[in-house]
Amino acid sequence: MDPTHEHENRGPALADVTRGRLLLGGDYNPEQWPEETWQEDVRLMKAAGVNSATVGVFSWARLEPRPGERDFGWLDRVMDLLHEHGIGVVLATPTASPPPWLGRLHPETLPVDEDGRTEWWGGRQHFSHSSAVYRRHAAAITEALAARYGGHPALTLWHINNEYCTYDHGDEAAARFRDWLRNRYGTLDALNTAWGTAFWSQGYGDWEEVLPPRRTHYLKNPAQVLDFRRFTSDMLLECYTAERDIVRRHTPHTPVTTNFMPLWFGQDAWRWAEEEDVVSVDLYPDPRDPYGGQEGALIQDLTRSQARGGPWMVMEQATGAVGWRDVDQPKPRGLNRLWSLQAVARGADAVCYFQWRQSRQGAEKFHSAMVGHAGEHGRAFQEVKRLGADLATLAPHVSGTRNEAHVAVLHDWHSWWAGTQEARPFAQADLPVVLRAWHRALWQAHLTTDFAHPGHDLSRYRLVVVPQLYLLTDAAIDNLLAYVRGGGTLVCGFLTGTADEDDRVRPGGMDARLRELFGIRTLHEWWPLPTGGTVECDGFRGTLWSEELEADGTADETVLYKGGELDGLPAVLGKGRAWYVSTLPEPEALRGLLAGIAADAGVRPVLDRVPAGVEAVRRGDLLFLLNHGREPVTVEMPGDHRDLLTDTPVSGSLVLGRYGVAVLTS
Amino acid sequence: MDPTHEHENRGPALADVTRGRLLLGGDYNPEQWPEETWQEDVRLMKAAGVNSATVGVFSWARLEPRPGERDFGWLDRVMDLLHEHGIGVVLATPTASPPPWLGRLHPETLPVDEDGRTEWWGGRQHFSHSSAVYRRHAAAITEALAARYGGHPALTLWHINNEYCTYDHGDEAAARFRDWLRNRYGTLDALNTAWGTAFWSQGYGDWEEVLPPRRTHYLKNPAQVLDFRRFTSDMLLECYTAERDIVRRHTPHTPVTTNFMPLWFGQDAWRWAEEEDVVSVDLYPDPRDPYGGQEGALIQDLTRSQARGGPWMVMEQATGAVGWRDVDQPKPRGLNRLWSLQAVARGADAVCYFQWRQSRQGAEKFHSAMVGHAGEHGRAFQEVKRLGADLATLAPHVSGTRNEAHVAVLHDWHSWWAGTQEARPFAQADLPVVLRAWHRALWQAHLTTDFAHPGHDLSRYRLVVVPQLYLLTDAAIDNLLAYVRGGGTLVCGFLTGTADEDDRVRPGGMDARLRELFGIRTLHEWWPLPTGGTVECDGFRGTLWSEELEADGTADETVLYKGGELDGLPAVLGKGRAWYVSTLPEPEALRGLLAGIAADAGVRPVLDRVPAGVEAVRRGDLLFLLNHGREPVTVEMPGDHRDLLTDTPVSGSLVLGRYGVAVLTS
Amino acid sequence: MDPTHEHENRGPALADVTRGRLLLGGDYNPEQWPEETWQEDVRLMKAAGVNSATVGVFSWARLEPRPGERDFGWLDRVMDLLHEHGIGVVLATPTASPPPWLGRLHPETLPVDEDGRTEWWGGRQHFSHSSAVYRRHAAAITEALAARYGGHPALTLWHINNEYCTYDHGDEAAARFRDWLRNRYGTLDALNTAWGTAFWSQGYGDWEEVLPPRRTHYLKNPAQVLDFRRFTSDMLLECYTAERDIVRRHTPHTPVTTNFMPLWFGQDAWRWAEEEDVVSVDLYPDPRDPYGGQEGALIQDLTRSQARGGPWMVMEQATGAVGWRDVDQPKPRGLNRLWSLQAVARGADAVCYFQWRQSRQGAEKFHSAMVGHAGEHGRAFQEVKRLGADLATLAPHVSGTRNEAHVAVLHDWHSWWAGTQEARPFAQADLPVVLRAWHRALWQAHLTTDFAHPGHDLSRYRLVVVPQLYLLTDAAIDNLLAYVRGGGTLVCGFLTGTADEDDRVRPGGMDARLRELFGIRTLHEWWPLPTGGTVECDGFRGTLWSEELEADGTADETVLYKGGELDGLPAVLGKGRAWYVSTLPEPEALRGLLAGIAADAGVRPVLDRVPAGVEAVRRGDLLFLLNHGREPVTVEMPGDHRDLLTDTPVSGSLVLGRYGVAVLTS
Repeated sequence: MDPTHEHENRGPALADVTRGRLLLGGDYNPEQWPEETWQEDVRLMKAAGVNSATVGVFSWARLEPRPGERDFGWLDRVMDLLHEHGIGVVLATPTASPPPWLGRLHPETLPVDEDGRTEWWGGRQHFSHSSAVYRRHAAAITEALAARYGGHPALTLWHINNEYCTYDHGDEAAARFRDWLRNRYGTLDALNTAWGTAFWSQGYGDWEEVLPPRRTHYLKNPAQVLDFRRFTSDMLLECYTAERDIVRRHTPHTPVTTNFMPLWFGQDAWRWAEEEDVVSVDLYPDPRDPYGGQEGALIQDLTRSQARGGPWMVMEQATGAVGWRDVDQPKPRGLNRLWSLQAVARGADAVCYFQWRQSRQGAEKFHSAMVGHAGEHGRAFQEVKRLGADLATLAPHVSGTRNEAHVAVLHDWHSWWAGTQEARPFAQADLPVVLRAWHRALWQAHLTTDFAHPGHDLSRYRLVVVPQLYLLTDAAIDNLLAYVRGGGTLVCGFLTGTADEDDRVRPGGMDARLRELFGIRTLHEWWPLPTGGTVECDGFRGTLWSEELEADGTADETVLYKGGELDGLPAVLGKGRAWYVSTLPEPEALRGLLAGIAADAGVRPVLDRVPAGVEAVRRGDLLFLLNHGREPVTVEMPGDHRDLLTDTPVSGSLVLGRYGVAVLTS
Repeated sequence: MDPTHEHENRGPALADVTRGRLLLGGDYNPEQWPEETWQEDVRLMKAAGVNSATVGVFSWARLEPRPGERDFGWLDRVMDLLHEHGIGVVLATPTASPPPWLGRLHPETLPVDEDGRTEWWGGRQHFSHSSAVYRRHAAAITEALAARYGGHPALTLWHINNEYCTYDHGDEAAARFRDWLRNRYGTLDALNTAWGTAFWSQGYGDWEEVLPPRRTHYLKNPAQVLDFRRFTSDMLLECYTAERDIVRRHTPHTPVTTNFMPLWFGQDAWRWAEEEDVVSVDLYPDPRDPYGGQEGALIQDLTRSQARGGPWMVMEQATGAVGWRDVDQPKPRGLNRLWSLQAVARGADAVCYFQWRQSRQGAEKFHSAMVGHAGEHGRAFQEVKRLGADLATLAPHVSGTRNEAHVAVLHDWHSWWAGTQEARPFAQADLPVVLRAWHRALWQAHLTTDFAHPGHDLSRYRLVVVPQLYLLTDAAIDNLLAYVRGGGTLVCGFLTGTADEDDRVRPGGMDARLRELFGIRTLHEWWPLPTGGTVECDGFRGTLWSEELEADGTADETVLYKGGELDGLPAVLGKGRAWYVSTLPEPEALRGLLAGIAADAGVRPVLDRVPAGVEAVRRGDLLFLLNHGREPVTVEMPGDHRDLLTDTPVSGSLVLGRYGVAVLTS
Repeated sequence: MDPTHEHENRGPALADVTRGRLLLGGDYNPEQWPEETWQEDVRLMKAAGVNSATVGVFSWARLEPRPGERDFGWLDRVMDLLHEHGIGVVLATPTASPPPWLGRLHPETLPVDEDGRTEWWGGRQHFSHSSAVYRRHAAAITEALAARYGGHPALTLWHINNEYCTYDHGDEAAARFRDWLRNRYGTLDALNTAWGTAFWSQGYGDWEEVLPPRRTHYLKNPAQVLDFRRFTSDMLLECYTAERDIVRRHTPHTPVTTNFMPLWFGQDAWRWAEEEDVVSVDLYPDPRDPYGGQEGALIQDLTRSQARGGPWMVMEQATGAVGWRDVDQPKPRGLNRLWSLQAVARGADAVCYFQWRQSRQGAEKFHSAMVGHAGEHGRAFQEVKRLGADLATLAPHVSGTRNEAHVAVLHDWHSWWAGTQEARPFAQADLPVVLRAWHRALWQAHLTTDFAHPGHDLSRYRLVVVPQLYLLTDAAIDNLLAYVRGGGTLVCGFLTGTADEDDRVRPGGMDARLRELFGIRTLHEWWPLPTGGTVECDGFRGTLWSEELEADGTADETVLYKGGELDGLPAVLGKGRAWYVSTLPEPEALRGLLAGIAADAGVRPVLDRVPAGVEAVRRGDLLFLLNHGREPVTVEMPGDHRDLLTDTPVSGSLVLGRYGVAVLTS
């Protein structure tokens, strides 16, 4: 056991992998290259400070070229070679892409979409989560891998499957869906009640009538769609835990992860994270996005929170282009380093890439890599080398430290699943849009922010923000009310508490206790705004949404709509420590509103007087300053500090160059 | 028999339902609510003056939860409760949404689209109009309903199915399509001739080769598509008449309707209306549409005309949002009342809603209702109450009166079906766009307008307008020519008489007799305009379309194109009482043109000097004035009148407030 | 044997059809018309100078109304009638549209798309190229036609099928695909290597696992897609050669063609042209396209080059509208003549139309024709008559002459197929866009241009231009290098030589020998530009694309990027006679660049001081001047000439009217 373990009885963790280091690495697919290239690979890895390689993610057909026929020789040599050079291996189960023979021999393992169209091999992820045959074959190859490499000294971490993301509407999935529903509801009556099947004559008289939401003539039952999304997340999780349990049996002390896609709709990542020893994420902000830095911060804050405060891993990112963007530009010089160090600032202990060496063939050969097509002398690799040096410099100071946040943003996949459906008046106010806007306001106000589930213990936060939780369970509402009663400050955006757990609209269109909390007598109507439309309020303009509210006169603070149909009606209500914001204020207004409420709640920004475009983050005792702009900028830094990256003293102020980073100690 | 019956021998009619009242009501779905809510429902209905409830529209699964197993108890209680409170019941056959068991036991009842994709249960309307099994089950539940409730004193009207709108391209539909074609054409030779199968080698040598227009590699046979649309309308009509005949057998004196969707492509509503005792329509203009008021007027004029002058029913409208619009705003304060009274002005004797109480679950829970999520104190219900009072005030004056029109607009579904197909140069000049533009010109000119079929007797109209009848049968052309010979004034837009009944282009690209009627020697070329493009004419600009015409020198009046390729060629030709307009003049120009021609034909507007945005309609002796604007407006009203709604005298002028309405008697 | 044959042993050729004339004609479909109309047809044909009619293109169902039952009587009469009036017949095999009975009796002949959807009869081209049953029936009807009409005196040319363009992803196609792959690769190992199946676990262990690229969950294997496109072109070619061989057996001296669609993605037209005696193309520039004239020139240059310098045929064009365009305008007065004479200028000896008489029924009844719906007096026919007179005037001077070009543009379908796929950063720089831009620059510079395949002998050209050949085989690179070594001047646009024959990215992202040729040390990154975006260079702006290049210091000429991320890096490199252009210069800049390089290479424009919008082309000793504008324009013409069309002398200058043409001899 590693002496850095905080508790004797905790399970394996990322610290067991990092052992005081920051990881630098990436997906390594030696099976795409002749063995002579492997030698160059390890030479360049060493040159760049790479200390981790993720192996085997898509190797099933190579490992098992024909049913039951196994070929591990090449993988033995890869593992040995990496170990020989001191590079740890994140070993993946290869189950995200079954070999062609599986689909040919067992077509029932192929997923079917809602229109009944089969998804064939020739891409990837052509497996039905519900297929017993798929699961059996996946378990067998996982068992074989774990048995063979469980004891290999290179092995540091298990990586199960890859970016779980599939759906299936076929007959075997239908049977599994019925099992899942039987388990959830017990009786058909309970299902009929939860799904509101009295509407449109959908009452089920026999379990066998229940199907996944397949193509319909007109709108689908929304509760059926919601449950199918829950079921899909759960089925994929079963696939994950089945493989996890196999490797855990062989290597109880080796941690296990699976890599999330960023803010991915298909998985309840809160639930999933509970089943992981290490939380890892793939991080792909668009280099052309002027808010790409904030997008990264959002994913990092979310992932750190899923990792219960961290540390966590960037399992994939790109040194440059990704291949799948409409306008697919590389990262400008310096941006890769900036965004990598940002992840470290926000709690990552590992910065990994897809992939080590850019493929010459296959569907992702235009996805950049640590070693691009241009090779060792290409800019991509040169920048990776510099990053490797930076990470080595920072590691002793960063390792074992954590971020502390006094603000939490609530997010819940079930609410997202319920709210993002057809025939919703809030289609233009879809959750990710609203979530990003609220997070951006906090990010620009330099308020370090965790994410939390509405059922979590919130008492450690001074400010809790709910951008949009259309669906809130009764228990979640209890939790919010208790939080406010306990002295917490709560700010909710529109569409909070509209629906219950079954996507049933609550009487009044918003939970009555919440209405009382905010001082709302009647929610008469929703007034969605057209694309790009705004609504005047007293002091700012609202976007996306507005509401025809009638206050009950108990609010302490009210901001009114001005002009138009809502003239004189409340846009924002503040009652004690509870706030309701019935529109999305334009960015500066939302930032000002939240900064003010945060200040009243005793939450201070990380740093004052930070120039625009500079991000300030504290991790442990370190202060990270990150310049997201292409122009140099001066930051006032009263007192004496030292920049760890340059090993130079900083007094009173410092200049950050284009995409520049400083990591200050006092 | 009701003494208000005009003729002893007429069948049942809307007057049997209204009995001197104006109906206010809506779809009532008590099966979605606990019985304690029913008590509140009737209390609120009474408070609002609701006197009609539409029950059972989607109740099949509740009435027949398993094949052959019937549960009528709840419906007995609903019928009794409503009757007890004096509320009449529009009782629906529930056949628009079969229970899940039907699809499971008989998958052949599910419709298949042109790509071969099944439409499953879980939405609604998942039935094939051609399925013998579906029809048998639909007949059985209809029979059971009619037998049980035919004698119930609450029953006032039968409502068959709901918004018939489905298609089927499957094998059973293919067999029915062949039957229908055999009946239409008699021989394969006749079919081959009508479909022009010599083109692209499509000649059929055996009836079994004939299919619905399924997915093809390239363009489909347009006559096949046209006949499939005819067939689809006819099959749905067979579904309707089969159920109608069942209920009529039980209740020969209770009228029957089915609710049309507004200007719906899929049904030949002229033909359908002939099979109805009461014509009813669903009315959903967009509150954000600046021409929403005209859209309503168009549907109302069309429905009144289908009801042979009226009265007719608004079977559904919304108090606010509908759930399915991209930007789905509620009706601003007052608009619901305005548009409801507009329907009465244009001949409606019933103003009903979907639905009474807003659903908390299901696909339409964001569709507004008479009692919204906000309940009794919400704005929606408060406005319904006010409307109920207005309707009660107006009823004694309105009941039994009719609108009189001297202008008719011709519309024909077969022409629409033929003209709206792929590979048409007039895609941007699609019929509804052109129809709305011409109706708008007449509406803004305060010319009360009926709609008529091109085969109808037109002699009672002084002016007949043909916005676009691409397909005209020989008989229809005879009819138009006879109308003009008889002294009528005819104005035709472009694409009049291009094709014959089989979508066969007439020699010359326009029927020769029509060319002679208008003074056209040669139609050289069509010049469709690009989106938003215009063409200069002498005195106005044309939109959408232009034509390279050669006049024969017999026209009395000619407006020329100016500049461009068509410089100096005729844009508008007037020859005697026949006019041809080869472009779509911009709105003011079209209004001016039609107002001038109407004046020459002796047709006067309802009122002179009406301010912009105010609509004036006469029904019987009443003059309805409707302000479609949000600002008050003064209307000059020479003489002395009384406003029935406010029971106040009006002398010389009156002020209509925001969305204000006055109903004047002299 | 015709005495005009240049060589005794050459096969049949277009000269055997034209015999000193220029052909005027079109698709003639008498089966759509009563026989009395045929008499009018021949009268009007004679009046217009029509000397060729293409018969039978879609006549299968008429010729074989039931399996094996043949009806040739009508066609006998058509052939006799045309011959009687001196009109030659281009006789088509009718195999592009099988009769309905074939699909009904043999559903396996119907193509299936990648989603598994069948393409049914009711349109056209509903045949699977891989179906043995289809091929057998196609061969039988072809055999019957050839046997019956091979000796008919009207027969001048065989026209096989029509616009080959289909795909099939079904099971029989899958089997044929495997055969094709076995033939190409020999072993599964070789296939796995070529397809890079190590990526994403796609290794094939059994031939039966290999499929066409059907629907996948995520990105498809690009080499599989590339080979499927090769296979599709080859299968269609097999269909063509099978029918060609049948007719050739009957009529060894009658030439054979099949009509290409213009710049059509689906066929390797270089390969196909080798199998044709006559190369023909369908020509449909948009009359509204301001560069429609250049689009025509491009297709004409390409077709002439496929015909090894010509002559060639316009098999189809439209007198006006086509029916399938979004905005489908006719050709303005004069444009049909201009574009027809342009084709003659660029080597066509035949100007034919789809179709002779506009259909009244069927999917293309809005496609214009030589005799439109307006008939004999319509503008379309009047303009055809004038064209007929012009062609008769020119024929004696034009026949047997050829165009001479010193510039070649390289184009290759395999490169297009490889480059146009999902997940490509160059989606916005798709080959046709870039190809058109480069050709436009040469066209506007009045540099007569051939097209060539990268494997062709290029030594006869002084300048070779490569707009974009993403895929270049090793042999093609050898060829380019040899060309430059031999004194040729080479100008390459971006994405030249990125990939090898298997779509495998070459090390460095561009072939190393090419990098050396241009003086490039490292291609660091691609920088695609957003839609409409530009990049500043020294002296011009680039569009679509830019690159982060590091020069090796050996270039003679360098144009640099200015500002932005690429500031100071090379945009254009010239090293000896080899040039690399890493962006798409704006039109004037590209024209200037190419004109300068051409001048240095000793290539002169056809004419100096040509006004904008006028095209100058030499064919033999004739100089064609074509005014693409609607305003008259004066062209300086030093010396004395004669305009053949007007039979008037030209001295010093001449005026071309709207869409005017002059054909000058010295």
